[in-house]
Amino acid sequence: MYVVMVYDVGVERVARVLQVGRRYLTWVQNSVLEGEISPAQLARLKAELKRVIEPTDAVRFYLFPSREALRVETLGSSKNEPTQFL
Amino acid sequence: MYVVMVYDVGVERVARVLQVGRRYLTWVQNSVLEGEISPAQLARLKAELKRVIEPTDAVRFYLFPSREALRVETLGSSKNEPTQFL
Repeated sequence: MYVVMVYDVGVERVARVLQVGRRYLTWVQNSVLEGEISPAQLARLKAELKRVIEPTDAVRFYLFPSREALRVETLGSSKNEPTQFL
Repeated sequence: MYVVMVYDVGVERVARVLQVGRRYLTWVQNSVLEGEISPAQLARLKAELKRVIEPTDAVRFYLFPSREALRVETLGSSKNEPTQFL
């Protein structure tokens, strides 16, 4: 499946959340990572993130069935286009 | 359709981008708005945003065919759940 991860976390945890996220997904712009990921990898990503974030933090995963099902439109610059395909 | 809007813009433009975005979508967490929107409304939202953002800014719209097609999973707190249905 294809996942878009967005996060809104305490500034002191941004670097750690990004570090964990980048092991599975590609950074595309501030607070946003994307990429193809298996259900098992997503479960591991979530488990790792749970050890980093606080209850006041928020992380959302938008799930598309596949890369082909993704529909994204952009305005302005594209800071980084994901090229990570399994 | 159902849209997730994420934005990475200069700090001096965040308030304006959020103000424009909130006329069409619901704020769910920092840098993220969601909601049901028609193609015509999305075109108007994009036109308004183009007048606000700079070329170095980045706005991404992830499009789901409908609210029912949306698959989202969350970790931590949910800062705001969209209740806006057309």
